Amino acid sequence: MQGLPDKIQRVIKAFTVLPGVGERTASRYAMYLFYQNNAVKDELGGAIKDLAFGIRLCGECGHLADGEKCMICTDESRDKHLLCVVESPLDVVALERMGGYRGYYHVLHGVISPLSGIGHDDLSIDPLLKRIKSVLAKADREKGVDGDGAHVGLELILATNPSLEGEATASYISQLVKGFSGLRVTRIARGLPMGADLEYADDMTLARALEGRDAYNKLS
Amino acid sequence: MQGLPDKIQRVIKAFTVLPGVGERTASRYAMYLFYQNNAVKDELGGAIKDLAFGIRLCGECGHLADGEKCMICTDESRDKHLLCVVESPLDVVALERMGGYRGYYHVLHGVISPLSGIGHDDLSIDPLLKRIKSVLAKADREKGVDGDGAHVGLELILATNPSLEGEATASYISQLVKGFSGLRVTRIARGLPMGADLEYADDMTLARALEGRDAYNKLS
Repeated sequence: MQGLPDKIQRVIKAFTVLPGVGERTASRYAMYLFYQNNAVKDELGGAIKDLAFGIRLCGECGHLADGEKCMICTDESRDKHLLCVVESPLDVVALERMGGYRGYYHVLHGVISPLSGIGHDDLSIDPLLKRIKSVLAKADREKGVDGDGAHVGLELILATNPSLEGEATASYISQLVKGFSGLRVTRIARGLPMGADLEYADDMTLARALEGRDAYNKLS
Repeated sequence: MQGLPDKIQRVIKAFTVLPGVGERTASRYAMYLFYQNNAVKDELGGAIKDLAFGIRLCGECGHLADGEKCMICTDESRDKHLLCVVESPLDVVALERMGGYRGYYHVLHGVISPLSGIGHDDLSIDPLLKRIKSVLAKADREKGVDGDGAHVGLELILATNPSLEGEATASYISQLVKGFSGLRVTRIARGLPMGADLEYADDMTLARALEGRDAYNKLS
């Protein structure tokens, strides 16, 4: 960006670190901010700098938290027999916004991606396995104590994105937990999104939609 | 955004002030930054806060400047007989990047827009008129001194955007300078952009392209 003061060029360059922001979008942001009053610049700049301190990951599920545990893990009223595995905290936000899910979450903080060099140890997979074992053990003990004979167990919902990496990660985790007694592993449904046009759907989506078809009465 | 710590929500809210950034894009930016190391957050946050200080508008043309005058106005080698009127500093950047223009600029900092309550006094129009008069007076004096009889004058290039407001502003300024002796007022050409498809052009653009047609040999 020729012909602009250093300070503006610095902001433009800094904005380009954001995902999907090139030099032009960054310039638009910078110029827009330049015309705003100082309170707006201070608020955005300060909020971003402040991100560096005080936000923790929940020790239980890996979601963002103000303290030791996140708001969801501290909520005792949720269903302990449901555990939903997602890629990122924003997936938790999306599912919470939807409102129909009352179980707990586990945030992987990424997906397995050999091309980007991200594997088992870069993700929150070991804590997930530990957590599953602990829930299953507790369910077993409760079964023993109650003596009602019913096997309570845990449903592990694999809700990674339906992308190449997301599918691979779901498949990888399902292999790791194979043979865990009392565990049911499910995958979120993949098919046509609501409002979609069959005519314009891609082949993968169509194949999944057919493959995953279910009895009409059950769903409607 | 339910279920996220206050600090993240604050960043998300702050990002939504940027043009074209809604809650979803803001969340993506915030989460992306959260995963970056602290130096990245400090750089972006600091650069934005720093915008509040030390950037001035050039006292001559209104472009962004580090000091009293911008880099372009301090460049004595430019053509004093060309003055290009633009809406914003980014327009100056675009024209400088193009590289073919060697005159000076005048930045209006907006366009006349009755719907947004922006009129004559909100724009840098009075300084523009003063500047035009001063250049014309100087050209007149030089003519007198040189005694060569040629009328030097000034070309005022109206380069506001070809939008409703940009056209209105160009028209308004051309009215204000009507009758200024030795001043030639021009407007940047509007027509089909390079690489465009006549078939898909809108009617206004097509009409302008036909209206502004010129002798073939002159342009090629």
